[in-house]
Amino acid sequence: MSFRRKEESHIVNVLYRIIIMKKIIYIFITLFTISLSAQIDRVEPPFWYEGMNKSEVQILFYGKNIAQNSVSVSNNVVVTNVTKTENPNYIFVTIDTKNVKAQQLQFTFVNGKKSFKRNYEIKIRRENSALRKSYDASDVMYLLMPDRFANGNSNNDSSSELQEKANRSLPGGRHGGDIAGIINHLDYIKELGATTIWSTPLCEDNDKGYSYHTYGQSDVYKIDARYGTNEEYKQLATEMHKKDMKLVMDYVTNHWGAEHWMFKDMPTYDWFHQFPGYAQSNYRMTTQYDINGSKRDAKYCMDGWFVPSMPDLNQSNPLVLNYLIQNAIWWIEYADLDGFRVDTYSYNDKDGIAKWTKAITDEYPYFNIVGEVWMHDQAQISYWQKDSPISKIQSYNSYLPSVMDFTLHDVFGNVFNEDRADWSNGTIKFYENFANDFLYANPNNLLIFLENHDTGRFNQIYKNDFKKYQLGMTIMATMRGIPQLYYGSEIGMSGDKGKGDADIRQDFPGGWTGDSNNAFTTSGRTSEQNQFFNFTKKLLNWRKSKSVIHTGKLTHYIPENNVYVYFRHNDKESVMVVINNAADNQKINLSRFEENLAGFTSGYEVISDKNVELKNELSIDAKSSMIIELKK
Amino acid sequence: MSFRRKEESHIVNVLYRIIIMKKIIYIFITLFTISLSAQIDRVEPPFWYEGMNKSEVQILFYGKNIAQNSVSVSNNVVVTNVTKTENPNYIFVTIDTKNVKAQQLQFTFVNGKKSFKRNYEIKIRRENSALRKSYDASDVMYLLMPDRFANGNSNNDSSSELQEKANRSLPGGRHGGDIAGIINHLDYIKELGATTIWSTPLCEDNDKGYSYHTYGQSDVYKIDARYGTNEEYKQLATEMHKKDMKLVMDYVTNHWGAEHWMFKDMPTYDWFHQFPGYAQSNYRMTTQYDINGSKRDAKYCMDGWFVPSMPDLNQSNPLVLNYLIQNAIWWIEYADLDGFRVDTYSYNDKDGIAKWTKAITDEYPYFNIVGEVWMHDQAQISYWQKDSPISKIQSYNSYLPSVMDFTLHDVFGNVFNEDRADWSNGTIKFYENFANDFLYANPNNLLIFLENHDTGRFNQIYKNDFKKYQLGMTIMATMRGIPQLYYGSEIGMSGDKGKGDADIRQDFPGGWTGDSNNAFTTSGRTSEQNQFFNFTKKLLNWRKSKSVIHTGKLTHYIPENNVYVYFRHNDKESVMVVINNAADNQKINLSRFEENLAGFTSGYEVISDKNVELKNELSIDAKSSMIIELKK
Repeated sequence: MSFRRKEESHIVNVLYRIIIMKKIIYIFITLFTISLSAQIDRVEPPFWYEGMNKSEVQILFYGKNIAQNSVSVSNNVVVTNVTKTENPNYIFVTIDTKNVKAQQLQFTFVNGKKSFKRNYEIKIRRENSALRKSYDASDVMYLLMPDRFANGNSNNDSSSELQEKANRSLPGGRHGGDIAGIINHLDYIKELGATTIWSTPLCEDNDKGYSYHTYGQSDVYKIDARYGTNEEYKQLATEMHKKDMKLVMDYVTNHWGAEHWMFKDMPTYDWFHQFPGYAQSNYRMTTQYDINGSKRDAKYCMDGWFVPSMPDLNQSNPLVLNYLIQNAIWWIEYADLDGFRVDTYSYNDKDGIAKWTKAITDEYPYFNIVGEVWMHDQAQISYWQKDSPISKIQSYNSYLPSVMDFTLHDVFGNVFNEDRADWSNGTIKFYENFANDFLYANPNNLLIFLENHDTGRFNQIYKNDFKKYQLGMTIMATMRGIPQLYYGSEIGMSGDKGKGDADIRQDFPGGWTGDSNNAFTTSGRTSEQNQFFNFTKKLLNWRKSKSVIHTGKLTHYIPENNVYVYFRHNDKESVMVVINNAADNQKINLSRFEENLAGFTSGYEVISDKNVELKNELSIDAKSSMIIELKK
Repeated sequence: MSFRRKEESHIVNVLYRIIIMKKIIYIFITLFTISLSAQIDRVEPPFWYEGMNKSEVQILFYGKNIAQNSVSVSNNVVVTNVTKTENPNYIFVTIDTKNVKAQQLQFTFVNGKKSFKRNYEIKIRRENSALRKSYDASDVMYLLMPDRFANGNSNNDSSSELQEKANRSLPGGRHGGDIAGIINHLDYIKELGATTIWSTPLCEDNDKGYSYHTYGQSDVYKIDARYGTNEEYKQLATEMHKKDMKLVMDYVTNHWGAEHWMFKDMPTYDWFHQFPGYAQSNYRMTTQYDINGSKRDAKYCMDGWFVPSMPDLNQSNPLVLNYLIQNAIWWIEYADLDGFRVDTYSYNDKDGIAKWTKAITDEYPYFNIVGEVWMHDQAQISYWQKDSPISKIQSYNSYLPSVMDFTLHDVFGNVFNEDRADWSNGTIKFYENFANDFLYANPNNLLIFLENHDTGRFNQIYKNDFKKYQLGMTIMATMRGIPQLYYGSEIGMSGDKGKGDADIRQDFPGGWTGDSNNAFTTSGRTSEQNQFFNFTKKLLNWRKSKSVIHTGKLTHYIPENNVYVYFRHNDKESVMVVINNAADNQKINLSRFEENLAGFTSGYEVISDKNVELKNELSIDAKSSMIIELKK
């Protein structure tokens, strides 16, 4: 998530005044409570699972004056903790589910002579749930924005319960895309060669406007009705698993939307970070480890709000932290998820987010989580990856398995326009990016990408130059790490970040009934769209079975004449990749690569589908690449 | 040393052919040696010292067929090793000086019935030699090039024994500057406020041309006759010590000049790195820790030659390594040195240079050595500093106490032209540089500099804009680290790197008899020169006694509106520095700095010599800085 999004956000400058008023009201309520018969409006998590590694679950009951009650549970289940806060509408009840089999439990609430009961279900976990596999470098991740991908169900475009109604004529409005639209086009994504979908958030975001990005959520236990239902989200995972695909949820720990029901009636004053007046984050994430930094700057980075419409969650409050952990685990179990992407990872409370991440991965040791750490220096990015040699300097461990290779993204920003190489321009930029891999705990668990939903689109930057797209995709398909595509670029979609986020988040053509161009089908695509699609499809499907790309060692050579040569190799296979970023055809002397070419005399070139000789010299066209499977 | 210097060097492309021929000749000599009466042409080190921590010294005897002899020493001194090589003109004799008092020893060489003797002196060490103090952040280092600073002795401008003669009309020629010239102007340097001199190398460089930089040495035990004598160099140190100043030698471990006598008659074939054909370094120092790098690229970086006229020393040969260690120690003892600067540090054999550095600092535990590591990434630079958390990743320790803050130099390159700040331009660049200090083992032992003898001159880049010079010098005088000035900039000298190195290494005005402008004296300086000089003098002399600047903690704040504010503070003192890089006057709200301003209500501003109030707001002029000693 980019802080620049704030430019398009509805600024809610009065929020902080409301906060102060609410505090006064809380105190008022506490002092002059009228003993009304308690009602339960919400229970979260709405149910839980048997056999969890962490057997305690802290259940939030929300209802008017609920805190006036004492609580007990049926069937000898142990209540280990009951926490009440300054807001009498909340009660947090912790039970230990160790040895508690799946069943319907009953909570009894007693207030003097009045009492009432509430059922609570412990469900069966799916088999091997804890040991679920996740995405890794054998996958290709397809990032889409559900509102903009495909409208599979026009009946849910608007909802009577939600403020913003569909209006496709507004660039920043709700366009009607939904989960049904994704399900309808799984075959398209699979045909392309992507194996994993990262959809931007789907939980309810009831902002008055600009809610389509859905990073300002109002209910994190409920899929936004305009995308579908919780059941449909679960169905999406089921359908994907049938096709051997993986579903990654975009999880937001840092903030909720100002319409979140718990922001409107806060459990505790410190549930969110609050300042005298509105305080915005300074976005300087280096403050989190800067030994020269001021405490103030560090605090404002983490605790300041991302934008005024997104109250900043206080993960150092154990109730908040636990709420976020349980919510995340609940979604994994409920929807049978294959991984997370975590928004604005490095804006969270540093210790809090580490605890959150550790809790998830303690429960699911193979679960991959990639955090958004949008920085421009490998050491700084590395800091946030699990077991980082950099964060070790400060005895910190985020436990986050994967981070995003934003420095590689920086390289992609202009490199293919650099026809002429010099000491620091041209393909040397790739070389220098990967030369710093020693700073990472696990370079192969980095997400690599040409672009995402917060950046300028690759095809905009390079003016839909197919040759440059080929160069970029060749690197994406062969380099260490997990490639992440952004919906639509595979058919040449462009979008100018300079015009605002809506421009880089346009509707996928064919996703809406009546679209004149349907890029989901071969016949519906223009010839240019087919050119982009077919190349991408060929590359990614080739990649699928190439374990040497998924896990092989990378060896690269200092670029010469703007030609970058690297190898992916293991005991069984070797692939040579040649990137000629120069504007002229070149002949490459192969003797320099003896270390990796010894024993190989020819190869099969994947892009051209041709065999090539590997003696003395290799010819390569201007602005083109080769992927050569080496043969003895 | 910049590899770009090669552009100006005399290219000696035929050298590698000579190497091959020499090898053949060696074999020839070895097979058909004629037993001539041995003579000794050189003994190195020429003498040694008693009471060294490492008591063994390996003495090189050089003379025609010297290796035919057996060797013994007088006075029961133990010969622990005699090494002969494929070149019969060398013999390396190691003696143990443990418990050997200062005296004249006698070596006896016996070949059959013939024998001869050679005296060898063990001298007294100066008191507390091993525990000598060195330069640190309490110092200000003045970098000068001796050929270009001042000609104190016109009789030594040329030497009958050395090829290149003085010719001041050649920009890249020898201009006649010398040690006497430095000695003559120590008062000038001291008045300026510098406490330490780093002179570029002074040992003999007998190249035919372009020898004035003296990085291609032909005899590392002898001061170049055009600079003076060994005795004069020693005298320079003596005179400086009288003035409480420190002398830093520029040591070159990576290479010698092609005119070095040992290159002309190599002790062993592998004394220098040799390839089939001439191999130049690729200068990609990242190869030294790149986990994806090819072995070939790593080898060519280290073992390739810097330029064709500079044979690359093989520090992995123990004879070479020991020769370099002893030579360095000899100079420390002989000339009573206060520190080293090491040229092209990161182009040396990685393990070899670590052993060299450890050997020096084992012998002199407080001796500071700053290595040239010209990289553009803090993690990469940090790698080369002693106890670096970065090199620990690869279990490497260079033992090098100090490195150069080249990323800060990168910032200085354009920042003061950036009147308008944005996310990544303007003073934020300073902030970001220091935000990465956590990557260094010891940020306060970094050399900080606006420029050096290999870069464009600051006053050229900023067109002699005095305000910009003031901004730069304010940071230099107040930031963590050891400030290094470059001769002449204190009087506004400029020089364009784009025109070649000679342009940034022009003669200091007044250094030569007859110079129309004598910038060494107040009356000789132009008013502009006095403006630059007086400001620098004031700042540096203020700095001298400010231990809070030398060792105080740094706390900095995220720049706002292109104003960078930081504090240097300890238990006793606090200094606030304000850098307004914007083109307009500004009022700064002080509440943001409460963390450092609490308890202080006013201050003394050093540059303007005025007291300032510190309540609510502080006014600062466009493109100006303030250094405020805070008062309770």
